[in-house]
Amino acid sequence: MHPLRPLLAIARGDAPASLVLQNVRLVNVFTGQVQPPADLALCQDRVAGLGSGYEAQQTIDLAGAYVCPGFIDAHVHIESSLCTPAQFAAAVLPRGVTTVIADPHELANVAGLEAVQWMAAAAKALPLRVVLMGPSCVPATPMATAGAALDADALRALYRNGTIHGLAEVMNYPGVIRGHDDMLAKLDALRGQPIDGHSPGATGRDLDAYTAAGVGSDHECVTPDEARDRLERGLYLLIREATNARNLDALLPVVTPANARRICFCTDDRTPGDLLHTGSIDHMVRRAIVAGLDPLDAIRMATLNPAEWFGLRDIGAIGPGRVADLLVFDDLQAPTPRMVFAKGQLVAQGGKLIEHATPESETNLSSPRGRCTVDAQNTDLAIPALGDTIRVIGHLPDQLLTESLTLTAKIENGYAVADPARDLLKIAVFERHHNTGNLGLGFIRGFGLNRGAIAGTVAHDHHNLVAIGADDISIRTAAAAIAKDGGGLAVTDGEHILARLPLPIGGLMSDQPVHAVADAYADAVHHAKALGSPLADPFMAMSFMALEVIPALKLTDLGLVDVERFEQVDLFV
Amino acid sequence: MHPLRPLLAIARGDAPASLVLQNVRLVNVFTGQVQPPADLALCQDRVAGLGSGYEAQQTIDLAGAYVCPGFIDAHVHIESSLCTPAQFAAAVLPRGVTTVIADPHELANVAGLEAVQWMAAAAKALPLRVVLMGPSCVPATPMATAGAALDADALRALYRNGTIHGLAEVMNYPGVIRGHDDMLAKLDALRGQPIDGHSPGATGRDLDAYTAAGVGSDHECVTPDEARDRLERGLYLLIREATNARNLDALLPVVTPANARRICFCTDDRTPGDLLHTGSIDHMVRRAIVAGLDPLDAIRMATLNPAEWFGLRDIGAIGPGRVADLLVFDDLQAPTPRMVFAKGQLVAQGGKLIEHATPESETNLSSPRGRCTVDAQNTDLAIPALGDTIRVIGHLPDQLLTESLTLTAKIENGYAVADPARDLLKIAVFERHHNTGNLGLGFIRGFGLNRGAIAGTVAHDHHNLVAIGADDISIRTAAAAIAKDGGGLAVTDGEHILARLPLPIGGLMSDQPVHAVADAYADAVHHAKALGSPLADPFMAMSFMALEVIPALKLTDLGLVDVERFEQVDLFV
Repeated sequence: MHPLRPLLAIARGDAPASLVLQNVRLVNVFTGQVQPPADLALCQDRVAGLGSGYEAQQTIDLAGAYVCPGFIDAHVHIESSLCTPAQFAAAVLPRGVTTVIADPHELANVAGLEAVQWMAAAAKALPLRVVLMGPSCVPATPMATAGAALDADALRALYRNGTIHGLAEVMNYPGVIRGHDDMLAKLDALRGQPIDGHSPGATGRDLDAYTAAGVGSDHECVTPDEARDRLERGLYLLIREATNARNLDALLPVVTPANARRICFCTDDRTPGDLLHTGSIDHMVRRAIVAGLDPLDAIRMATLNPAEWFGLRDIGAIGPGRVADLLVFDDLQAPTPRMVFAKGQLVAQGGKLIEHATPESETNLSSPRGRCTVDAQNTDLAIPALGDTIRVIGHLPDQLLTESLTLTAKIENGYAVADPARDLLKIAVFERHHNTGNLGLGFIRGFGLNRGAIAGTVAHDHHNLVAIGADDISIRTAAAAIAKDGGGLAVTDGEHILARLPLPIGGLMSDQPVHAVADAYADAVHHAKALGSPLADPFMAMSFMALEVIPALKLTDLGLVDVERFEQVDLFV
Repeated sequence: MHPLRPLLAIARGDAPASLVLQNVRLVNVFTGQVQPPADLALCQDRVAGLGSGYEAQQTIDLAGAYVCPGFIDAHVHIESSLCTPAQFAAAVLPRGVTTVIADPHELANVAGLEAVQWMAAAAKALPLRVVLMGPSCVPATPMATAGAALDADALRALYRNGTIHGLAEVMNYPGVIRGHDDMLAKLDALRGQPIDGHSPGATGRDLDAYTAAGVGSDHECVTPDEARDRLERGLYLLIREATNARNLDALLPVVTPANARRICFCTDDRTPGDLLHTGSIDHMVRRAIVAGLDPLDAIRMATLNPAEWFGLRDIGAIGPGRVADLLVFDDLQAPTPRMVFAKGQLVAQGGKLIEHATPESETNLSSPRGRCTVDAQNTDLAIPALGDTIRVIGHLPDQLLTESLTLTAKIENGYAVADPARDLLKIAVFERHHNTGNLGLGFIRGFGLNRGAIAGTVAHDHHNLVAIGADDISIRTAAAAIAKDGGGLAVTDGEHILARLPLPIGGLMSDQPVHAVADAYADAVHHAKALGSPLADPFMAMSFMALEVIPALKLTDLGLVDVERFEQVDLFV
């Protein structure tokens, strides 16, 4: 039988609905109005109609509660939750997020094409709709050793086999503006589909060129002027509120009734604890309303607008034939879903996931595993003193940008060593993907450890093993523990392992429940702080110290990189 | 060289723009605001950027004039202009219409797949962008003999080879609602693409089912309640102002700032004279503003909104990389373009087409020709009197609906004949596509001819040759004249031909300039009125008297059809 027939029969009134939600006040994002109480009839995963007098196999009386479409996160890296798609879903579904536009960029830097396909397989059977975009910049540069590469042909193949929907944030905006062959080829591979942008700080002619190339959005705005510059050019504005980059308050004043249709919400990167305790898009919607935005506009920014930008015609609204992703809530001024329906199924109630709503996929998880080939115990971390003066990475609180400092080295027995008294710690980047033995060594200020070390395989974008410590034994212990776990995070003090969070899936994601991951992560942060770090989240901070595309000084497995000059430099000046 | 490179170079400011329009006040449909005067730089057919200080190969100082995107007609049958796409373009481009979403439904009923491909070829090189939708209901019913059929496989083939963009107005809405196999197959063939609707009078559960099937718009609303019913369900509302169906005034009160984004304008069917003397979408925009609509909303309804509904990401707005379809005008309260740029080329100025802007395509026009195989002189039109009482089609002024009358026949020599004194005229429908000799005969009231006949091969939807006359000789003379012309319109009085308008392209379209067609059409109407017809446009009225899907009584080449019973009936009661 044609799959539409049961839906048509219920819509016509010729068959009982599979479920009728009675007495709902529909938040109609098409018209921008709340409709008077009526009954919403479903046919399995689809909406059949709104009316009265439906026969039903099951009814739920919602007694006048509001019902709006499920929220859409317009741009997120699931990997930042350190969880599988299923466990990420377990965190966000109770918040009312029923669709995410996901860029599997982190895992792709580890395992390439296979990673994107694994992510698709792992998400396939979930009630959360995961719309994958093709990572556009893997690897970021040739100045680090990533696990894999994705070229235009690979992206085209992923599109043709239905794995990806568009092109994810095009971070190499200088390459696009200058018309580099590889970037034009990647844009061409997905032309006609949504192409997300990433153009921090670009203005004027540069922004014109970037837009003209076919990019259609940006989520990197931090000032109202930047946001207006993008809206005027026709870029969708994705307002971001990530754990480590919070732009909502700054950008809300940009929203007007006339331009709101071109604005969406996204979370980009949120830690598991942030997702569990603060929330996701639901949090942004409520915050926006508190800040004075019309609730209908705020809800549209979380539903219809991203559906339109991404050309997803059957979600983002409630109407006949649309997917029944539905949120039930009681206060239009503070939409906190007390029931969440995803694809017509009740998946969360009272902020709690319905048990077994997000089973782990049966996909073979082995693919992106086992990628931590570091032999830490046999790695020599000593730095022969080739001079007195060294380049030091100067970490700045709450920033991804670093300073490039020039300081006097502490030298012992002909070796440059850490000097915790001056907050001068050793940083090491172990290549972990290809067993090359590549090792980058340097010094960093700002992490404040009095002793011990922290380490992890979350290190944007190449995700090699990065460690920061007061002594070589602590660093080696941490690296060895992580290598044994197949990737993860660790805190050590000498030969003692104080905390560890295994991330066996690509060295980026845990195979444990999100609550356990959040707890383990908090425990690791706690121990890092106990060792003296003043940072709110030293692991998050560390994960950007090896990212060679954000100025000024960074360390990769190939050595120090002066990002402003875009070249490798020596440790000793 | 990659085609984007010149555009990127101009956008960056590294190369002179091909054209700079200086001092424009940009009507920004993204933000809903008019921007302060600035310079708009083009790279051939694309916008490079808005700013200042551009180098340019050519400049035009617009001295503060407004510039908005070219208008989009969201639904039109080009055939109703009785002109080729090139001559239709000559009529609408000076009005500022730079894109039409066209349903080649009329020609497809004559020549099927070949007709759609011919229309695409004939439109291909024009500055007017013709986005073809696949005709969904060819033929309308089995109760008439059409020239051709288009099934789901044919539609799928047309989509796959890039000829059509989506599915055109799905007129068989009862078939969709009831889930008929052929309609579901056609919807499936274009699923994921825009599917336009046509659901006159449908409400409640029927409208739910129709929407649930995947239809996304409607242009048949005549009352505000119908319009709101459709907007609430998520159907785009295409407000229509056709020559013979004017819904703008009735529907404008529905538009609010909150729902305007889901509303577009369309013309559906306009005669050549109406296009030349009244206008097209430009006329609707001005009328809407006069009626109190915000000019920015009105312009968006003619630009960004249809671009969004049809997923046409590079038109409908002015921004870097978008196609340079631009209108220049001086009064925001009455946008009458004094310059029209289509794909970056100036195509009209002061309401006049730039000479040679719309050359006829070199496509082989012979395909849809020569389809009028009627042998009128040897056709016996006599109706033996099989009784006294006859069913008569009762034409109602300004309506497509007819009454089914029961009247006493006038009988002479054993034959039922016309009786002009009682406004009882003979109507004949000659099958013209397949040389079957099929002939439908009957009587009609309401056309008011005192003598003579009118005839034409425009007869929705099958487009057989229909004639209405006071005597058989006049009818035969008209039919013979048209057959000789390979299709067209004619007015006769006995053996005298008073007026004729040959329509050799499929019997629907002239090969002459639009002004000549408009004049010839006006002349034919003039002669029909001189013969006594009180109708404003007797040819338009006649063209719907053979349409067997609009109640109550119609005549096809297979005989009288009782549309309410959806079956053929005898002439004699």
